[in-house]
Amino acid sequence: MHDDPHFAPAAAGFQALQDRICAALEGLDGTAFRHDDWTRDDAELRGFGRTRVLEGGAVLEKAGVNFSQVHGEFSEAFAATMPGAGRAFVATGISLVLHPRSPHIPTVHMNYRRLSRGNVGWFGGGADLTPYYLDLTDVRHFHRVHRDVCRSYADVVDWPTLVRDCDRYFVLPHRGERRGVGGLFFDHWGEVPERMAEFVAAAGNAFLDAWLPIAQRHLADGYGERERAWQLARRGRYVEFNLVHDRGTLFGLKTGGRIESVLMSLPPLAAWPYDPHVAPDSREAELLRMVRAGYDPTSDPDL
Amino acid sequence: MHDDPHFAPAAAGFQALQDRICAALEGLDGTAFRHDDWTRDDAELRGFGRTRVLEGGAVLEKAGVNFSQVHGEFSEAFAATMPGAGRAFVATGISLVLHPRSPHIPTVHMNYRRLSRGNVGWFGGGADLTPYYLDLTDVRHFHRVHRDVCRSYADVVDWPTLVRDCDRYFVLPHRGERRGVGGLFFDHWGEVPERMAEFVAAAGNAFLDAWLPIAQRHLADGYGERERAWQLARRGRYVEFNLVHDRGTLFGLKTGGRIESVLMSLPPLAAWPYDPHVAPDSREAELLRMVRAGYDPTSDPDL
Repeated sequence: MHDDPHFAPAAAGFQALQDRICAALEGLDGTAFRHDDWTRDDAELRGFGRTRVLEGGAVLEKAGVNFSQVHGEFSEAFAATMPGAGRAFVATGISLVLHPRSPHIPTVHMNYRRLSRGNVGWFGGGADLTPYYLDLTDVRHFHRVHRDVCRSYADVVDWPTLVRDCDRYFVLPHRGERRGVGGLFFDHWGEVPERMAEFVAAAGNAFLDAWLPIAQRHLADGYGERERAWQLARRGRYVEFNLVHDRGTLFGLKTGGRIESVLMSLPPLAAWPYDPHVAPDSREAELLRMVRAGYDPTSDPDL
Repeated sequence: MHDDPHFAPAAAGFQALQDRICAALEGLDGTAFRHDDWTRDDAELRGFGRTRVLEGGAVLEKAGVNFSQVHGEFSEAFAATMPGAGRAFVATGISLVLHPRSPHIPTVHMNYRRLSRGNVGWFGGGADLTPYYLDLTDVRHFHRVHRDVCRSYADVVDWPTLVRDCDRYFVLPHRGERRGVGGLFFDHWGEVPERMAEFVAAAGNAFLDAWLPIAQRHLADGYGERERAWQLARRGRYVEFNLVHDRGTLFGLKTGGRIESVLMSLPPLAAWPYDPHVAPDSREAELLRMVRAGYDPTSDPDL
């Protein structure tokens, strides 16, 4: 079928990571994940997935932690947008989006994947944080954990480049905003030394260290209707990004992926109020300024 | 600037229609529209718009009725997807989306527009109905009104063609569903006889006859949490269509349109529950069967 030596070890690592993350989130929330395993074996796509969903939790309003391992054929049009030759591809990855109930806990996304097509294979992925209210302590913590991983693999990755690519990727041009405060992003690496596979495993393993302490810090923060309304409107932006721009989502839609898994990243509830008023000196305005101007952790002396 | 003889009369007609529709909806709801007029005069786009929004009404949870009249330049990439030559375009149109509060009143969309580029001009638009629960009396009424308009202009439009094009356009391939139960849709007509301009005016004028009686029939229908949850999940589908597929929305995003007006079509609140269970003999399943199989008013003996 394929002769990608990185595929099977990556798939095994992603599954183990999925188990570990789900266990930790169940510990945080007190709610069990629903397991929805699936297999596909048709003309479009063959393989299996382990979808894990938690809805209506105490901390997590909706959380999805997916693993999948599939092979299939790109459409002609989609194949033209990808490196490599031929239409056959294999893909495996872990993909996670957590939508907390509290507006004081940031939404977070993480995805690491291995894809190959013909004799070209690449790793890709990253993690990014989307707060509703700005807390620099949180933002710095998230970036610091990822920076430290990148520095341990400085022979294969350059942290400032991954930060910059994240910043360039998670953008809503029509809003003049970034999705959040950034993180890491990388894709389409041609040559894959063994160390790159190790970096991907390490970055995935760092996820819980990066996000869990942030959630724990804000568990007891109070909020009311105003904060909830703001969160729902910002979640609308999350939907806009995922449906208009996100390559992972479009990849899923265009390769006939399992739709409930592909769109699991969408929030439990989102709002589109018309042109809502944001007072200039409010905490909502502070967040808006940050997503408009951007945040650069590589030049933050306090990171 | 341009020499499209259809432009000014179309623009005047769309403005008058906007006034008449807003007055009727204010009468239905008891709530006034917020007027948000705007002008633009920059390198990308020049012109003006009259945005009318009603939020939090008794009947209408969110309603947008927009008029705009702009000229500008297509990007190279977008220009390649359109007929005509050169990058300069002029566009005017009325665009409406009503998101009722009650799940028993269908969401409705209507849009008529005049666009020209170089020496090619065309009318386009249509109207389509998106119920949350199926009521064939409503569906037939909506189609009957539009059929009767088309029959009065049978020399320039063919009703079954417009119905078919609507059915083909408002589709979510990734869900295997239509957006709703159809209506009219047409676009990219090359030659424009005077009668076509008259048809567009007549179809726009028919909107209130097509939708208002449906809303009035269901004003007193009761509903609870179950129906509300179903409505919010179906509104999620509406968001998916508009952000992934809708040409009007993408046109607005890609030509640097006023974002709050372009995305005014999005619902006030929408939900994405994971793979919700729908009992086979429920009214929810009945709606799903209809949007999956499609409804063909041209072969309905009771229309």
